[in-house]
Amino acid sequence: MTEKKNAAIKAADYIEDNMTVGLGTGSTAYYVIERVGELVKHGLNIKAVATSLSTSNIASGFNIPLVSIDEVERIDFAIDGVDEIDGGFNAIKGGGGALFREKMVATLADRVIWIMDSSKVVDAIGTFPLPVEILTYGYNHILRKLELLSLSPVLRLKSDGPFLTDNHNYIVDLHIGKGFDIKYVSEQLKAIPGVLETGLFLNMCDRIIVGIKDEVKVIENPGKLRQ
Amino acid sequence: MTEKKNAAIKAADYIEDNMTVGLGTGSTAYYVIERVGELVKHGLNIKAVATSLSTSNIASGFNIPLVSIDEVERIDFAIDGVDEIDGGFNAIKGGGGALFREKMVATLADRVIWIMDSSKVVDAIGTFPLPVEILTYGYNHILRKLELLSLSPVLRLKSDGPFLTDNHNYIVDLHIGKGFDIKYVSEQLKAIPGVLETGLFLNMCDRIIVGIKDEVKVIENPGKLRQ
Repeated sequence: MTEKKNAAIKAADYIEDNMTVGLGTGSTAYYVIERVGELVKHGLNIKAVATSLSTSNIASGFNIPLVSIDEVERIDFAIDGVDEIDGGFNAIKGGGGALFREKMVATLADRVIWIMDSSKVVDAIGTFPLPVEILTYGYNHILRKLELLSLSPVLRLKSDGPFLTDNHNYIVDLHIGKGFDIKYVSEQLKAIPGVLETGLFLNMCDRIIVGIKDEVKVIENPGKLRQ
Repeated sequence: MTEKKNAAIKAADYIEDNMTVGLGTGSTAYYVIERVGELVKHGLNIKAVATSLSTSNIASGFNIPLVSIDEVERIDFAIDGVDEIDGGFNAIKGGGGALFREKMVATLADRVIWIMDSSKVVDAIGTFPLPVEILTYGYNHILRKLELLSLSPVLRLKSDGPFLTDNHNYIVDLHIGKGFDIKYVSEQLKAIPGVLETGLFLNMCDRIIVGIKDEVKVIENPGKLRQ
């Protein structure tokens, strides 16, 4: 918890007055929202775009001013967690099921910061199941195709039936195992009708902030360095 | 009307007992459903998968036995209309907004027949606006990206707000004009987060049936010939 919280507090330092900030989803992002709430309470003036209904509710609870993604022209900063990330800044995200909105916000943001505890940094991604958002219409056929591709799909369930995303779609978790051909799998998935988005976020962040015990490491993504 | 109806009646001739049939959406597909209803009334035993709620309702009215797409293992035949098709069997479909389900059914079907009146056959597609299904979250940003790509997007509206698909998404109609680079545009569109599916159906049919005045022409797609 300390690692996540320290990373979150460090990330919030980058937020300046009058920014539009994208707020991520999940247990690490929670600490960012909490921290932003404190800063807002002490006078920080920002607008926030939430990546999920859950984040929207939490942010409201902290009195953070929210705007819809379609009301803003641009997003200055997006801060979000990851489920796994490798040394090439390729991440699996969407364990909480918010991958589509997280990707949309990350795509729009001028700068993207991902925060995490040290367990999230791995030599190769794939141990964490890769979430894929699919439409409900025809989902059995999509599952069959994913099986034919040997991607070991499991429809995400909750107690009373399939898990539904904020967009009213299903999530399939792919238990591929680490060391898969990331680009190939990404392309295969996108070619399947009914696959809306994958939890593969490839080289999309400008910076990662990692909590390691009591310390915090800020690592710039060299592939995204600005002049 | 006669051209559409003649093509539809001819297409229904291919349906045999015990088949699972995909039923398309739109004014031409209506005549197929009507014809299938007559055949069912006279003893034809089939199951049908509808490509839209509208088609589902119409088929129910004709007492055609319906099954959900997720209840069937496969679809023998899909019969649907098109909005425009060129000599390379590249079509624009989805004028009725059902493009995603139409594509899902066409992808699953062993054989795909498209039926049309003679006005639908063109030297190059693009005069008919290309429909694209997009998610509602972030739609303004998707529209902006489509504008930057010079694809002249127009959000489809109805009297009380944006048109909603059966999947609860929006439709954007792209007024590109004929003669565009089909493959390039298709790839550009698919790369945009939030684009669920496009109305480009490229070389997906086995056969087209065209009503031309009082006659009907059946044209096989040489790219899909079976041995």
